[in-house]
Order: sequence, then structure tokens, then C-alpha cells
Amino acid sequence: MNSGDDHLHWREIVSQLVKRCGIFDLYESRRRAQNGKEGIFHLLKAPDWVNVVPVLNNDEGRICFLMVKQYRQGIAGITVEFPAGLIEAGESPARAAGRELFEETGYRAKTLKPIGTISPNPAFMTNRCYTFFAGDLHLDSTAEPNDRLDELELLDVLLVPVEDLVDGIGQEPYCNSMTVLALYWYQRMKGGEKGADRIRTGA
Amino acid sequence: MNSGDDHLHWREIVSQLVKRCGIFDLYESRRRAQNGKEGIFHLLKAPDWVNVVPVLNNDEGRICFLMVKQYRQGIAGITVEFPAGLIEAGESPARAAGRELFEETGYRAKTLKPIGTISPNPAFMTNRCYTFFAGDLHLDSTAEPNDRLDELELLDVLLVPVEDLVDGIGQEPYCNSMTVLALYWYQRMKGGEKGADRIRTGA
Repeated sequence: MNSGDDHLHWREIVSQLVKRCGIFDLYESRRRAQNGKEGIFHLLKAPDWVNVVPVLNNDEGRICFLMVKQYRQGIAGITVEFPAGLIEAGESPARAAGRELFEETGYRAKTLKPIGTISPNPAFMTNRCYTFFAGDLHLDSTAEPNDRLDELELLDVLLVPVEDLVDGIGQEPYCNSMTVLALYWYQRMKGGEKGADRIRTGA
Repeated sequence: MNSGDDHLHWREIVSQLVKRCGIFDLYESRRRAQNGKEGIFHLLKAPDWVNVVPVLNNDEGRICFLMVKQYRQGIAGITVEFPAGLIEAGESPARAAGRELFEETGYRAKTLKPIGTISPNPAFMTNRCYTFFAGDLHLDSTAEPNDRLDELELLDVLLVPVEDLVDGIGQEPYCNSMTVLALYWYQRMKGGEKGADRIRTGA
């Protein structure tokens, strides 16, 4: 911590649980700034998330992302996004990545590589999101989709050519911010240095 | 809507407000899937957000982002991120971008250009986030910072060279997912076609 930032810091006076909501708990926290001002902040305490970027060739040899199509309750609409989920208590991010990939798609990955970490919303969420590249994939047919998925999960699995996602990102159904993040980390992994150099030179 | 996705859709049966939390309202929604399953979903109804990428040269002629350093209550730590905020009722995204830029930094932009839109969290948030590039900046010294900022906003304004953000993204203090998104849209605007082509050829 940079001590030059002391004037920006807040201190918690009291915190209380307002409601448990399944995938997050809502807390109310009273905090005081260095200048004496006080405020009440509503915070979502949530487990860390994992986001998986599985890459494989389709039947035509095109490089594709393995993605999931599902109805999203927040926007009341359909998205196509990367497999993702909550990291369970005691579970490592890498293990959660492999588990969510399998549960949502039926695929297993021999290669899982961390490519980026972020706070989904530092303003009111406490958690982090870990993104993994998943390669050397194979379909594990030992379990039926209904056995793999959570009780209320309904989703379709599909292959999206890399260029289709790059072209469509930010438009439905590729409108989940976590999908943009994952694509950013993937592109950085694939060609990040060139990209950074291009920006550096203003090209 | 693709009618082939009917099997993925849910229908709301009843919804009720649980708590107003200032920057969002928590709702509980009971919904039914096409297969008859029912679930209760916790949703945050929030105004749309705006995210601004202000670019200007520093005294040494380096291309910099104008960013804000602040304490973020969710992660209880300091971030450096792009100016951002809530779009007010009846306000256009572009107007909100200009207003937030001024309130948080004191700068006005002659150029404001939309560069990307996304749903921050389609799973449980209803809103969208609009990102704008801001150029042709000038400092408007007619208002003191304390007059511009919201009651509980404490922040420092700083210039971050573009390459510093590109190199540091995903690490503190550049750990807000909205910062990654904004950087993605900015890089796409600056060199997106080249980037897409690079990915297409697998380079």
C-alpha cells in the first residue's frame, strides 16, 4: 500500500448481513473516511468466479471457442459466453475451471493455464474472477448433461469460430462483460506483446 | 429472438423488491422454465453505467489516459480506473459520459465517441455499460473538485501512459473489470482490424 494514498482510505465501523441470495450475500457496511465523513455502503460478498476459454478445431479445421448459450435472468435474454461459475470452498481456481468446463460442456482439458485475474466490480463486490485458457480438449462421455448440470442450469453447447466472436463482441448474444474480459486475456496470450507494441508506437 | 432457443427461456411469475440499496435495487423474481422447473432469482436492477476513456498527451508528449485513483468499498482497497458513473434518468449515455468526466477530473471533452457496450453481469444485473472515447480535452477550472464530486466521492486524478496500463492491466491498482473492458474497446478502436486479422491468421 502506498502511504501517499492514506487520504483515500475508509475504515469499517460496523457491518451486517442483510440477505443471503444464493450466489452472493448482501451486506450493509458503515464506513468512515479520513476526513470524518461517514457512509453506508451495500456490498455483495460472493465466492470467487472462474471463467474458461476452451479452444479447439471444428470439423472444418477452424479454430473455435467452445461456448455456452443460455438464458440470463438479469437481462432476461439469451447470451453466448464462455463456461464459467463459482469457485467452491477449498477449491483451487484451476480445479474449478476444469470442473465448470466439464459440467457445462462435457469436455475435459489436459491443459489449463491462468491468463488473467480481475475484480468484477471493486465498487460493491468483494470477489475476483480468474480466467483460464483450456486446451488439449476431449469429450468425456461418461456423464449425461442432466447429471453434470446444476439443478436450474439449462444450456446449449456450441463452437464459435474465433473471428466470429472477435467480430461480434459487444453485440447480442456476445454481450457479457466476462466474455470480453476472457477474450482480452486470450488475445493478450496469443499476441499480446505485438498488440502492446502497436499501441506503444501509436500505430 | 431465435425461436430455436425457446427451450432455454424462462418466464417471470412474480417479482418483488427486497431492498433499495442506492446504486441498485435488489429484487427477488420467481421464474419458470419451459420444462416446468421453477426457481427464485435475486436480481439487481441498476441504472445503466457509463465508462469514459479520456486520452491526452502529458508534458513529455507521451499519450496518456486520464484516470482516477480511489478507494473501492467492495475490495476494500485502492484502484486506478477510468472515470465512470451512473447514467441519470432521462440522460443520454453521451451526456452522462461528459458529465462524469467533468465531475471526476475537471476536464471537458470536445470529442466523445461510443466505442463499446456491454452487460456488466447478465446473470443478475439488468443494466448495460456504455464506453466512450473522450478526446480534445481541456481543463475547465470554473468549479472546484469539492463542488463537482458526489458527497462521498474522494479521488485523485492522474495521467497513466498508455503502455503502463497495457503492461499493468489485471494487477493492482488496475484490477477493475470495467477498466479492462474500456481498454479493450480503446484498443479495438485504435487497431482493432489489425488485431482481428492477427487472430484470424493465428499469428
